[in-house]
Amino acid sequence: MKNIQQLLSELPIRSLFKESRIGIEKESQRVTLSGELATTDHPKEFGNRAFHPTIQTDFSETQVEMITPVANSEREVFEHLASLHDVVRRTLPENEMLWPLSMPPVLPENDDAIKIAKLASEKDVAYREHLAKTYGKRKQMVSGIHYNFEFDSVFLKQLHEKSDSTQTFKDFKTDVYLKVSRNYLRYRWFVTYMMGAAPLSEEGYFTGCPKGRPSMPVRSIRNSNFGYTNDESVFVSYKSMDDYATSIQKLVETGKISEEKEFYSAVRLRGGNTVAAIQEKGVGYIEIRNIDNNPFANYGITEEQIKLLHYFLMLMLWLDEAPIDSDEWLREGERLNNQVALENPLDQTSQLEEGERLLIAWLEMMESIESSDDDIRLVKGLGRLLVNPEETLSGKMLTEIIAQETQEKFAIELGNTYQASAWEKPYQLAGFRDMELSTQLLLFDCLQKGISAEILDRQDQFLKLSFGGKVEYVKKANMTSLDTYVVSLMMENKTVTKKVLDQAGFEVPAGKEFITKEEAIASYAYFIDRGIVVKPKSTNYGLGISIFKEGASLEDYSEAIEIAFKEDTEVLVEEFLPGTEYRFFVIGDKTEAIMLRVPANVKGDGVSTIAQLVEVKNQDSLRGTKHRTPLQLIELGPIEKLMLKEQGLTVESVLEKDQVVYLRENSNVSTGGDSIDMTDEMPEYYKEVAAKAVQALGATISGIDLIIPDIDAEVTPDNPGYGIIEANFNPAMHMHAFPFAGKGRRLTLKVLELLFEGVS
Amino acid sequence: MKNIQQLLSELPIRSLFKESRIGIEKESQRVTLSGELATTDHPKEFGNRAFHPTIQTDFSETQVEMITPVANSEREVFEHLASLHDVVRRTLPENEMLWPLSMPPVLPENDDAIKIAKLASEKDVAYREHLAKTYGKRKQMVSGIHYNFEFDSVFLKQLHEKSDSTQTFKDFKTDVYLKVSRNYLRYRWFVTYMMGAAPLSEEGYFTGCPKGRPSMPVRSIRNSNFGYTNDESVFVSYKSMDDYATSIQKLVETGKISEEKEFYSAVRLRGGNTVAAIQEKGVGYIEIRNIDNNPFANYGITEEQIKLLHYFLMLMLWLDEAPIDSDEWLREGERLNNQVALENPLDQTSQLEEGERLLIAWLEMMESIESSDDDIRLVKGLGRLLVNPEETLSGKMLTEIIAQETQEKFAIELGNTYQASAWEKPYQLAGFRDMELSTQLLLFDCLQKGISAEILDRQDQFLKLSFGGKVEYVKKANMTSLDTYVVSLMMENKTVTKKVLDQAGFEVPAGKEFITKEEAIASYAYFIDRGIVVKPKSTNYGLGISIFKEGASLEDYSEAIEIAFKEDTEVLVEEFLPGTEYRFFVIGDKTEAIMLRVPANVKGDGVSTIAQLVEVKNQDSLRGTKHRTPLQLIELGPIEKLMLKEQGLTVESVLEKDQVVYLRENSNVSTGGDSIDMTDEMPEYYKEVAAKAVQALGATISGIDLIIPDIDAEVTPDNPGYGIIEANFNPAMHMHAFPFAGKGRRLTLKVLELLFEGVS
Repeated sequence: MKNIQQLLSELPIRSLFKESRIGIEKESQRVTLSGELATTDHPKEFGNRAFHPTIQTDFSETQVEMITPVANSEREVFEHLASLHDVVRRTLPENEMLWPLSMPPVLPENDDAIKIAKLASEKDVAYREHLAKTYGKRKQMVSGIHYNFEFDSVFLKQLHEKSDSTQTFKDFKTDVYLKVSRNYLRYRWFVTYMMGAAPLSEEGYFTGCPKGRPSMPVRSIRNSNFGYTNDESVFVSYKSMDDYATSIQKLVETGKISEEKEFYSAVRLRGGNTVAAIQEKGVGYIEIRNIDNNPFANYGITEEQIKLLHYFLMLMLWLDEAPIDSDEWLREGERLNNQVALENPLDQTSQLEEGERLLIAWLEMMESIESSDDDIRLVKGLGRLLVNPEETLSGKMLTEIIAQETQEKFAIELGNTYQASAWEKPYQLAGFRDMELSTQLLLFDCLQKGISAEILDRQDQFLKLSFGGKVEYVKKANMTSLDTYVVSLMMENKTVTKKVLDQAGFEVPAGKEFITKEEAIASYAYFIDRGIVVKPKSTNYGLGISIFKEGASLEDYSEAIEIAFKEDTEVLVEEFLPGTEYRFFVIGDKTEAIMLRVPANVKGDGVSTIAQLVEVKNQDSLRGTKHRTPLQLIELGPIEKLMLKEQGLTVESVLEKDQVVYLRENSNVSTGGDSIDMTDEMPEYYKEVAAKAVQALGATISGIDLIIPDIDAEVTPDNPGYGIIEANFNPAMHMHAFPFAGKGRRLTLKVLELLFEGVS
Repeated sequence: MKNIQQLLSELPIRSLFKESRIGIEKESQRVTLSGELATTDHPKEFGNRAFHPTIQTDFSETQVEMITPVANSEREVFEHLASLHDVVRRTLPENEMLWPLSMPPVLPENDDAIKIAKLASEKDVAYREHLAKTYGKRKQMVSGIHYNFEFDSVFLKQLHEKSDSTQTFKDFKTDVYLKVSRNYLRYRWFVTYMMGAAPLSEEGYFTGCPKGRPSMPVRSIRNSNFGYTNDESVFVSYKSMDDYATSIQKLVETGKISEEKEFYSAVRLRGGNTVAAIQEKGVGYIEIRNIDNNPFANYGITEEQIKLLHYFLMLMLWLDEAPIDSDEWLREGERLNNQVALENPLDQTSQLEEGERLLIAWLEMMESIESSDDDIRLVKGLGRLLVNPEETLSGKMLTEIIAQETQEKFAIELGNTYQASAWEKPYQLAGFRDMELSTQLLLFDCLQKGISAEILDRQDQFLKLSFGGKVEYVKKANMTSLDTYVVSLMMENKTVTKKVLDQAGFEVPAGKEFITKEEAIASYAYFIDRGIVVKPKSTNYGLGISIFKEGASLEDYSEAIEIAFKEDTEVLVEEFLPGTEYRFFVIGDKTEAIMLRVPANVKGDGVSTIAQLVEVKNQDSLRGTKHRTPLQLIELGPIEKLMLKEQGLTVESVLEKDQVVYLRENSNVSTGGDSIDMTDEMPEYYKEVAAKAVQALGATISGIDLIIPDIDAEVTPDNPGYGIIEANFNPAMHMHAFPFAGKGRRLTLKVLELLFEGVS
């Protein structure tokens, strides 16, 4: 390969160089909030581990493994990792958390108390038993991060074209990854120095270990020869793909390792199920395996770390390498890494000089490929770390641990903090907070239940879900293949909805639709002696609506018609239904949630002013702005003040204990209203009415609004007790999940259960 | 019943009085274009007569009966009648038409040549055979109109409440209809005078008739005792519901009539399958049976006639009646009617005086109930007819027939005119011309195939269809339950559509989506060296789109990105696909139509100027404005003139023979483009690609646009030959049905076939 640095500096290659695909696997031990290894099984809420694509168990039953989907940017992979942590943490039993360190917590004295993961596959269990026997269970309890990395295929193609290589694309690509791997293995001490984060072990980790244990704090036990490594006789060559394959296959044949995957290297070549397959197809990507869990990061690794590793891998392609005729460079890399790994975290590294040379080359690369100023600044920051070992992860850890006396205390405190943070805004899903709440809830359910979710359009809340071989598309969490095209259009049209419900025998407000004023006024007779609502067919924020609860005179009626026709070319006159409006959320043939919406209000305590009561009520973390929360802040604007004035009050009025004052006429949650779950309180009769009405519309998912004067009144043929005023084809789901009062209803999960068989 | 006139004049009753439901049944004989009774069977295109709700056969195989749905206004029932005629006429064999008279055409000498309707039900056939035997086949060949009439139920309830009646509502309602019936039977001579239209019979009608035949032209043979009447011994009382029921049941018991429906009265009480059922439930509506087909009306009756009959029936409720103790008034009514029916059409009627009294009362009623000026004018017009018998229908007929020498000639000419008129704009459906063309086509198919169609929202093109017990809803003819909610949203989102197609292995233009300019510009490298399109994600009339067919410099690319971001917050950059765009219309798993759209153009003839060529091309009845026609008029506005100028031409340029000149760059049909059906020309391969792509989207009905450089080029794995640029969830259907060139494709029928089993 010639002139690699020049090739990488030229357009278009330069701008494609940074494009890549990254995936992260991260393990963590489940522990109690006080730091003992958990004794519970992997939570059953995660469904069947046999095919859960993102939440697994590694060696032990307590070792959760989170696997992000492949992402196209550092930001994206970080978001996936964040969301997985949110899901895992909110699914854990109340007294459990994730251990924030790579090194395990204090392990039980008895080996039997360390449970091998209870997997369905006998082969998988047997393999773990073999590992336990060969390396000891305790060694297997260490956790870490694997970083899967793939260059962009257009980048590789362009690089192949522009280089004067005579190789096939497949061979060229394999050589690119081999070079990166070799350089990585040679320079990985740098990563160990910067990101190593395993200075100490807990009681019980080295129990019975023939190698002994480090006598002092180090940068990374896990990355040293005291860590989770193969026998020294296990050596694999990276000179060529053939050498790599042959040496691994030989190790298996001679029984030095039981399977190919037992080869523990800091870099694995990937792209096939076996090395033979990789040899056949060429290397697809590489897996970097030497990253320790960062205890200072909520999700074990920061977005900056992900970015730095990305640039470091690019650097490994950019850098010239030593002659590869012998495997000496590899042994040299291992030696340097072990040396750095076993240095005291607070000592200056022995490799300072090489580290500085690396950094100079790194920054040269970044200048040449025109990296952003922010990124250059980030890499420059490593220079400081190189001369300030106390600022490296292991350095900081050691300082903190000393301050807190034990590593255990240090880890327990951080673990508890992270666990609590997952519950701060339980209606959100980390990594996806820009999406609509209902979609965040649905994504939470998907992640928990092992339904693969691909975001096809983020702004549009459009997802592709896969489970058990079946693909479903979902928009806004409630628009699915469960409903037909025409039924959504039917619900969009209030007149049609009413006609269909009426024909099916449901109670709807009697009414007529007019396209001329004359016609409307001539029909006055239909509406005398009863409460009516006059409204434009397409209502916009209530403009043009007149309500006559007690009926209207011809004059008032005519005026209302005039007003309505100013807003639309079609006007509806409908019977006014007195009573309380309830939202029935129907999924399938069942009413799954019922919501009562109450106008913005405060309840007195005998001491506080209305302004103070509002302030206190607004402190609820469920309240926020712009629909980013299930409830909205109560405002004290002109409308609220006018409403108070009409009641002879001001914001400074002090309310008596339990005195309730309404601040709004309308009950919308969007203007500070309260949402009250009524699912358990509502008589079965109305739930059935709602479910059957939705069925009559031919719909599967709908929020149908019933006016009910009195839910406890006796229902007779003459008094059906309700009137249906609307069926919604895009009903809000999040307000049911996190109501102001009453039980939350996990509607998104119900939708998933209908979409996919076997979700539970 | 007291003070009926006062009650009817008061609000709210007054304004409800005219509300009513009307349905019309109209028979016509099928004849050849030269006036012979048709010898063909009832067209098989109408499907199974056993359950066709609107197009039936009456007595004979040639006697088409059209039955409108129940309508809420005169306009509506007229529209239904018009649409049924359009459907029947366009379904008839090429050399047939509907005979425009009540009296049949010249009948074959041999009775056997008059075929009894070939019905599936043995009972129905046996009944017709009985009629043939009892009254003679020839008598049964007369046609006419039945007018079903029902007062508004709110009107009847209010009337019941406001009257001091002690009756139940059911009995009250029955008495209302009985009064109307009695008065109608008493005064029906007036209808015979005004609307009688059967002055002459043709050869063969009275053959073998024991009663003989009128010796002179009369107002209405059909409504006289020479017409289609029961034996004189058949007498039914209208004094009360019980009397009515008892007398009919007795007639059946004594064998004077074979079934209840053999009682031929000018008014039948309706509302149940048997008189016993009507007695039980009360009268629901009445059926007026003495209306002759009006030969001057395209559909056998005018909207004005429908309105006059409506008012006349209201008048029958308004008018006091003679004492009903005896049935003398009934016999009097019959006598008067027969007398008027047998008067010479051009003679003054003997009942002038009573007619004038009726009209005075009629106008009094209209003043009292505040009828519109237009309606009052319409009724006043009857006064002129009363003194000018030559202006009555039979008077006008006779005058015309004398001028044309024979009634046959007169009828043939009118029949041909009406038949031709049905083909003037075959893409429209009379009565529904305000609806979208695709919906008109779908309604045509529904009417033809016997699918009941209720318009739930006219402006919204929202229909309820029923067939074989199954209900389906359809909007805009292409939005149905065959597609899912989410698939319509998927097709609405071009990015998602592309991703799904791409993942399924279809060829789509490679591309990327950006939310910042920097990101977009940084990705330039993806797009060098190839044609690209830069566009805002939501394109509005092509604003902000830049096309670089040969690729763009970084400078041009950046500028295009800037421009696109002015229109939207998201910008797409896509590979430009060279080739011709074809619209593939897929229904189910099959490509049913393929359309090539060509920009507005004219072809020279060596003589005409471009302006003249445009004028001639615009004379095509398929061309019009505002999407009311399948093609749009070619304009000669600034854009077209500029395009000509660029070619060195003006509108006055004379083109050589066969020289084609384009007037537009864009191929939209909406700017005068031509639509060319390519369904038969397109290789099967592309049809399958389109059908499978639609399947991959999970869609059933879609218009999918393929770019194909050369439909005849060889397809290889490296050259799939196409790129899919869009899938439409609301694809136009009418342009396929009536293309500029090539065969029309009846897509709406394909949709119906998928919606309902057994439609064909």
